Amino acid sequence: MGAVMIKLYYAANTCSLASHIALEEAGAAYTVVKMSFASNEQRSPEYLAINPKGRVPAMVTDRGILTETPAMLAYIAQSFPQARLAPLDDPFAFAELQAFNSYLCSTVHVAHAHRMRGQRWADDPAAIAAMQRKVPQSVGACFELIERDMLKGPWVMGDAYTICDPYLFTLSGWLEGDGVDLTKLQRVMDHHRRMSERPAVQRAVAAELA
Amino acid sequence: MGAVMIKLYYAANTCSLASHIALEEAGAAYTVVKMSFASNEQRSPEYLAINPKGRVPAMVTDRGILTETPAMLAYIAQSFPQARLAPLDDPFAFAELQAFNSYLCSTVHVAHAHRMRGQRWADDPAAIAAMQRKVPQSVGACFELIERDMLKGPWVMGDAYTICDPYLFTLSGWLEGDGVDLTKLQRVMDHHRRMSERPAVQRAVAAELA
Repeated sequence: MGAVMIKLYYAANTCSLASHIALEEAGAAYTVVKMSFASNEQRSPEYLAINPKGRVPAMVTDRGILTETPAMLAYIAQSFPQARLAPLDDPFAFAELQAFNSYLCSTVHVAHAHRMRGQRWADDPAAIAAMQRKVPQSVGACFELIERDMLKGPWVMGDAYTICDPYLFTLSGWLEGDGVDLTKLQRVMDHHRRMSERPAVQRAVAAELA
Repeated sequence: MGAVMIKLYYAANTCSLASHIALEEAGAAYTVVKMSFASNEQRSPEYLAINPKGRVPAMVTDRGILTETPAMLAYIAQSFPQARLAPLDDPFAFAELQAFNSYLCSTVHVAHAHRMRGQRWADDPAAIAAMQRKVPQSVGACFELIERDMLKGPWVMGDAYTICDPYLFTLSGWLEGDGVDLTKLQRVMDHHRRMSERPAVQRAVAAELA
């Protein structure tokens, strides 16, 4: 290869960290572009031309632009098969992995988003405040389900490290800010610590803090 | 084969219709089990043993149980490759398809869910009413993006019919109930009509009405 083929648009403390870690784990050649949500860069005409949704992450490839974390993670796993980040030859096992990531995207992340992004779903400030009050409970219920029924251990899918792991690590990093009772989430927190020890995770986190 | 390998748990007027149509399109051998949301069957101990999330759809296979529409749709496409419901040998094209389905799941369906399922994200009845008031606008904005930037035509991904099509058809069937202005969504509505003419769609819809 040689030439850098992938460019990841990310913002700090967002779900783009999952794809950033996966690119590191895959040994991909890539560059990153940091977006500032504080200056609303994700709504700039330049960025909307890349991702008309005005969100991160977005990933520029030599074939075109991809968005949506579960799709990007599966793309990374399929594009770098030697990294063995997903059971690519087993449709059922691949679907189990995708079901986990879809739950994170459409239920867990959405529950969390009611803390900071309530204006997506209501205009009334009192309603937005009511949404914020429920976040510890709604996010907590999601993670109790993960703790009890979904996280096989030591990695999400069991013995094999997969693209589920950086995604869970990213979202479990928001639990404290969401006011969730962590004492019920021992296995999730153990997973978070285990992830923090991986060099690829440390490199991605350090790059985003830089 | 001969023996039925797949059992789909569905409820009327829910996103499970997408997987139901995809199974028909794939020519799969399957049976369906209708759940009654009116009698809260999805929260029964029997069903929670199948899907601890207490939601539909769920799909029982000879390997185990799958949930989450995007994962189930990809599983159907991969398990019935002769039906050509996804570009299985092209990771980028597959990721584009998955990004579309992920957007439907995590943004479009979620916007819609604030009409009937507001109690997931707030307890205050006034907040739930405020969420309901915003649904025409939030769902409408999602579909305007689909109309303008995402639906390639005649099918979602262009000339090839894929697992994106039953999913879009299912969610665009909710637009009228959501109070969305349909006059701005000519291409989405054309797609809905085009889908309605497919025998597999007609069979799945008729089975759910029966």
